[in-house]
Amino acid sequence: MDFTPSERAAELTEAVRAFVRDEIEPVEQRLRRAGGDDRWQVPEEVRELRHKARAQGLWNLFLPAGHDDDRYGTGLSNVDYAPVAEATGWSHLAPYVFNCNAPDTGNAEVLLRYGSPEQRDRWLDPLLDGRIRSGFAMTEPEVASSDATNMQLTAVVDGDRMVLNGRKWWTTGVGHPDCAVLIVMGLTDPDADKHARHSMVLVPLDTPGVRVERMLDTMGFFDEPFGHGEVSFTDVRVPLSNVIAGPGRAFEIAQGRLGPGRVHHAMRLVGLAERALYLACERGLSRIAFGKPLVNLGGNRERIAEARIAINSLRLLIMHAAWKLDTEGPLASMSEVSQIKVAAPNVAQQVIDFAMQIHGGAGLSSDFPLASAWTAARAIRLADGPDEVHRGVIARIELAQHGASR
Amino acid sequence: MDFTPSERAAELTEAVRAFVRDEIEPVEQRLRRAGGDDRWQVPEEVRELRHKARAQGLWNLFLPAGHDDDRYGTGLSNVDYAPVAEATGWSHLAPYVFNCNAPDTGNAEVLLRYGSPEQRDRWLDPLLDGRIRSGFAMTEPEVASSDATNMQLTAVVDGDRMVLNGRKWWTTGVGHPDCAVLIVMGLTDPDADKHARHSMVLVPLDTPGVRVERMLDTMGFFDEPFGHGEVSFTDVRVPLSNVIAGPGRAFEIAQGRLGPGRVHHAMRLVGLAERALYLACERGLSRIAFGKPLVNLGGNRERIAEARIAINSLRLLIMHAAWKLDTEGPLASMSEVSQIKVAAPNVAQQVIDFAMQIHGGAGLSSDFPLASAWTAARAIRLADGPDEVHRGVIARIELAQHGASR
Amino acid sequence: MDFTPSERAAELTEAVRAFVRDEIEPVEQRLRRAGGDDRWQVPEEVRELRHKARAQGLWNLFLPAGHDDDRYGTGLSNVDYAPVAEATGWSHLAPYVFNCNAPDTGNAEVLLRYGSPEQRDRWLDPLLDGRIRSGFAMTEPEVASSDATNMQLTAVVDGDRMVLNGRKWWTTGVGHPDCAVLIVMGLTDPDADKHARHSMVLVPLDTPGVRVERMLDTMGFFDEPFGHGEVSFTDVRVPLSNVIAGPGRAFEIAQGRLGPGRVHHAMRLVGLAERALYLACERGLSRIAFGKPLVNLGGNRERIAEARIAINSLRLLIMHAAWKLDTEGPLASMSEVSQIKVAAPNVAQQVIDFAMQIHGGAGLSSDFPLASAWTAARAIRLADGPDEVHRGVIARIELAQHGASR
Amino acid sequence: MDFTPSERAAELTEAVRAFVRDEIEPVEQRLRRAGGDDRWQVPEEVRELRHKARAQGLWNLFLPAGHDDDRYGTGLSNVDYAPVAEATGWSHLAPYVFNCNAPDTGNAEVLLRYGSPEQRDRWLDPLLDGRIRSGFAMTEPEVASSDATNMQLTAVVDGDRMVLNGRKWWTTGVGHPDCAVLIVMGLTDPDADKHARHSMVLVPLDTPGVRVERMLDTMGFFDEPFGHGEVSFTDVRVPLSNVIAGPGRAFEIAQGRLGPGRVHHAMRLVGLAERALYLACERGLSRIAFGKPLVNLGGNRERIAEARIAINSLRLLIMHAAWKLDTEGPLASMSEVSQIKVAAPNVAQQVIDFAMQIHGGAGLSSDFPLASAWTAARAIRLADGPDEVHRGVIARIELAQHGASR
Repeated sequence: MDFTPSERAAELTEAVRAFVRDEIEPVEQRLRRAGGDDRWQVPEEVRELRHKARAQGLWNLFLPAGHDDDRYGTGLSNVDYAPVAEATGWSHLAPYVFNCNAPDTGNAEVLLRYGSPEQRDRWLDPLLDGRIRSGFAMTEPEVASSDATNMQLTAVVDGDRMVLNGRKWWTTGVGHPDCAVLIVMGLTDPDADKHARHSMVLVPLDTPGVRVERMLDTMGFFDEPFGHGEVSFTDVRVPLSNVIAGPGRAFEIAQGRLGPGRVHHAMRLVGLAERALYLACERGLSRIAFGKPLVNLGGNRERIAEARIAINSLRLLIMHAAWKLDTEGPLASMSEVSQIKVAAPNVAQQVIDFAMQIHGGAGLSSDFPLASAWTAARAIRLADGPDEVHRGVIARIELAQHGASR
Repeated sequence: MDFTPSERAAELTEAVRAFVRDEIEPVEQRLRRAGGDDRWQVPEEVRELRHKARAQGLWNLFLPAGHDDDRYGTGLSNVDYAPVAEATGWSHLAPYVFNCNAPDTGNAEVLLRYGSPEQRDRWLDPLLDGRIRSGFAMTEPEVASSDATNMQLTAVVDGDRMVLNGRKWWTTGVGHPDCAVLIVMGLTDPDADKHARHSMVLVPLDTPGVRVERMLDTMGFFDEPFGHGEVSFTDVRVPLSNVIAGPGRAFEIAQGRLGPGRVHHAMRLVGLAERALYLACERGLSRIAFGKPLVNLGGNRERIAEARIAINSLRLLIMHAAWKLDTEGPLASMSEVSQIKVAAPNVAQQVIDFAMQIHGGAGLSSDFPLASAWTAARAIRLADGPDEVHRGVIARIELAQHGASR
Repeated sequence: MDFTPSERAAELTEAVRAFVRDEIEPVEQRLRRAGGDDRWQVPEEVRELRHKARAQGLWNLFLPAGHDDDRYGTGLSNVDYAPVAEATGWSHLAPYVFNCNAPDTGNAEVLLRYGSPEQRDRWLDPLLDGRIRSGFAMTEPEVASSDATNMQLTAVVDGDRMVLNGRKWWTTGVGHPDCAVLIVMGLTDPDADKHARHSMVLVPLDTPGVRVERMLDTMGFFDEPFGHGEVSFTDVRVPLSNVIAGPGRAFEIAQGRLGPGRVHHAMRLVGLAERALYLACERGLSRIAFGKPLVNLGGNRERIAEARIAINSLRLLIMHAAWKLDTEGPLASMSEVSQIKVAAPNVAQQVIDFAMQIHGGAGLSSDFPLASAWTAARAIRLADGPDEVHRGVIARIELAQHGASR
Repeated sequence: MDFTPSERAAELTEAVRAFVRDEIEPVEQRLRRAGGDDRWQVPEEVRELRHKARAQGLWNLFLPAGHDDDRYGTGLSNVDYAPVAEATGWSHLAPYVFNCNAPDTGNAEVLLRYGSPEQRDRWLDPLLDGRIRSGFAMTEPEVASSDATNMQLTAVVDGDRMVLNGRKWWTTGVGHPDCAVLIVMGLTDPDADKHARHSMVLVPLDTPGVRVERMLDTMGFFDEPFGHGEVSFTDVRVPLSNVIAGPGRAFEIAQGRLGPGRVHHAMRLVGLAERALYLACERGLSRIAFGKPLVNLGGNRERIAEARIAINSLRLLIMHAAWKLDTEGPLASMSEVSQIKVAAPNVAQQVIDFAMQIHGGAGLSSDFPLASAWTAARAIRLADGPDEVHRGVIARIELAQHGASR
């Protein structure tokens, strides 16, 4: 059980960490306090940061190791990439600056693993090159989407075309000005086996019949410029060759898509929690009430200690899941991946809540990154499956060791 | 220990409850989904609701019982008003519709108890009449404001004038188009006894030198049209007669201001939590995943039960504090008032969090009132003194019974 | 909603409180430190306390109000008795001293409500007179007894006899030297409706075939001299007239038995928690570490405040349940009774845990009543239905208001 | 960061695990249900298990790697020993069977690191040989012992003798029939620097003036045959050569003593928690209530998942602390060691509590190892420093990184 990153990964982590603190943090502060006139544009400063990061080789580091197509490099293992992801979690701007942001990373992985050469040429290369962005459309407003077999948008084969009809929401990424394509999950064959009914279809955003009905806020935040949209599909027709890996394979793809992505998410939450604890200590030492620095009042030191214990435990839990993904693959790591999916946002939420509290009113305002960080963590308790569903997976696997069939 | 409301109060509670569900809720839903073009205006529909409520006698019900000036009616006791406050907590629009919204209620109480007849004529009457709104300016950006003795804005006597210099933030109410006056806490005599240094001053918003620097968001919400502002005061001069109860009495006034106000806040949070639980049950029964309604999955029923226990316990704790305020007065009720100040937002937060979780993504969006409700509860854990300060008060009073001097 | 006790109840509460502190506490301390040579005997000092309490009229105060048989007095309402129960919770010896201990109180209530005149003469009168004790035998070792329909011990009608065969455990009270009779729940008609299959049978302890197999410990404590036994029944024959209210009525009786009993248990836990908090404050003020009294270290004051909030909330929740039982009866109060059944031991456990922690090693030892108090609270989370079952009841009633059938 | 055990360690872990399940568990069950006639004797079956374990080389495995005296073998690193410790945590009998039980392991380490050759010959060799047992006497009844500088028992140099006067309690191990010697911490020079005032003295149990006043229970359990005693020292005289490492070095020794010992304790708690979860799954699958196995009722599956997350996180946190102790030494690992000291018993307590709950009454009884396991975990929240003190250490180290001096 060796969590030591390779030498190259250690150097990259160091470089990313320095870049985040020296280059990204100042821009982030400026943008946060400025507010956005047009929230759905990419600020010029951010585009410049992207160029700079790319020039330094801090680009697409999420790409997995060991892919057979040389174009996509040898990449990093999950254990190697995890500390990089933590470093990018420090600022919400960072993943995009390094071209390592969700949902593009997950979409890229899907194309890398399941895409045809043509699909890769057309979509993956410009994604990795940073010329386009993409969205992922799975959740639907009318059904409990925690059970993915509920999805009702239809994706019906009609000759050499796939025809889509229905409505999605929480389609992340669709607000970005460069968003060019969506991966859409649709119901193809309602009579097939439960996990073979749905397909994943590449739908260019400018296809007739695709309409972004509105952008949704997450507890008051729009997560611009990516955002989350409600999107309707009315007689949307795309070539059958836009189906990823062929009709009926959506579940298989969704599963494969999520393992490493959950490690990324979870490690970014570790970075976020570390920043919150950092800010809490700084604020708590510098502000005085009742004659003492805040850290010396009431239970604040105990809360700092609990935060440290929780963050360290979480980081190790994720490193272990990354290591298991690397050594035993996603199927053997299902419980571990669900464990970090539950633990990471809950720990982050708790640490950030404490940091907000010690900041007083400032912690709730946009002068500090804490409020949006908390909301991001809260949202992840629902995104990609709510806590409760993942706890169900963990329990099922645990009980299977005692002979239970479900 | 009798928590039975008077007959009149029971009727008013019923009327308020019906008005909220029949009149306010539909408007609230429409406005929430519409989003606001100009968030700092009062929508015409809301102004109409106010007229209607007033016409039905559902107006200024917060006014306390037993005031010696007949103009202000005989009012309701705290025990009587508490269920009314719960009913108004169901919708964030309701308190304003009934002219019972913070900070105007607290400001009105200050004027009622401590104001001169002239101050009442000029400010209290139009407040109660709904012609103006007001703000409360205490917290400052540069100091830990949980310790109110830290306040640094100066309010210096200069002949028959009071001169204010400094900066406040989280000045609630200052964004409202009808806001006409602020009550500002300032440092008058730094050499006086710790709790006699500060004054409360009435400052018309249009006084030269008063400047609203910006409106602050609370975790992404602006709480329009009231809002919370950062306000600078540069050589602001007002007549000495604008000082409430005379210089140096700010602490006394702040204490008196908060007892009933905290009962109101706390009971509104009960109303909010009840609505969240209501929505959770409705959603949990109507949405199906894995072949079952959500309420029958995992620990959801246990969470509903815990929510019911927590809400009922909280309501009774507040009713008891209200009863103690009525029968023994604010000084004897300090621990009880701090207890509800801690318990109410924490319980509400927990119940609303569960309701959000069972709603899935919808719970985070503005399609439901849950996200803004959660944020409101979170903010109250800091407003009027953070949890930690109130726990300190409770412990001090507890330990005093064991002979501890502090 | 009036929780004010009657004048008589207030006086009795005061008298009980004084008796507990002045008479019982010193004996309790002596006995605790002495350890017991013969744990299944009643120490002479305790018998004397009983005589003294009875002489002062502090005897059988649990008897409910409004019974039609004058012999059993008019009694106290639940609201009246609740504060008395809290006062007896302060010491584990107190309920017995006042002849108000479980399971005799519950058994007495069963006989009072459902017993025939003959059953009352033979069993109830000596119970109330303190000449005998009784046990309650429901839980079985071989089945999940949280579902009472699981009970397998058979109670079969054979002519004018009832014949019992099977095994019970956690039969509380069976270790007491004066224990003379058990109320045993047995399966009479497996084909009847689910809730009409079982009977409650009075079984004198000396009936042939009844055998106390062993006494069980609860986390190391035997709760002597009452204790909890495992009891086997082999061809035990009693007259049919020993069946309470006739065959098949066990469920109805069990339900009726538990409402007031749960108020008693819950209020005793309030008393226990108050004592723990009292001891915590005393110890925390008197012991010094790192140059400060323990209460001034870390989060201890915040924990004292949280304990105060939790205890006060709990007491009010129980008073409300008592009031509802008095005014609307047990059927309408099912949710409220389950709420206190869940809340009381959990709150007590948490407060006592804190008190143990602040006592250091002493808190774990028998020098203080904390360790046994914690264990008592822990056990009540299982006795009379585990937390989880009661949460299920609360949720069911909540969801029924939304139209759910179960 | 490599947590992979050496090949030898992996084999030993496997052997220990098999021995615990095949040999120790059946004996443990028999002894637990039998109860002890003479609790302060070592049952013959246990002595036989010790011979068997020793014969298989499963003996003294706790001995640390890299000691310069060849007699004591090369030993295992902390990373190597940690999984062995987890395996021994499964049964409370196991550590003694493998001669790896506290406090003898800690005492042996002290002698190994700080003892003179004579002290090792006289005490260490028979300890490792299993011929004697030892006790550790630090905590005192009259002072808050969480602050070790409070210790008042005097250990005064008088010529070539050390003279001890005072009283200790929670002297673990003193009840064992083979207990031959105590390591006693005493105050030697009250005027010295705070951390140079105390000495560690070897005191044979049969020295005149040493008196075991009583054995203490921990929440009803006596932890026989080792036990915890209250011990008085009256003019106890031992040769000056019995002082370990010379007078005034007690703090240095106490610190050194605790690093690996805390890894052992923590990993044993992981083993205990694993067993509790194992039993919970087994019971939860086999018992039926309301028509379903218990695991399928309410939130039980979610609780199983939370237990799995908590245990896995904890194990990794401990492995990391072990690895840091191995690679950077105890001084650099102070925060990590305190982190596991806090986390381990709290996690174990929570998992065991759930297991007890799912077992119903059986979980509280001595039919299952859960009740004593819970109590053991609870006691460790106080032993070797309460949670609160360790949280203070963690916070101090965290804040030092932000420039705080304390």
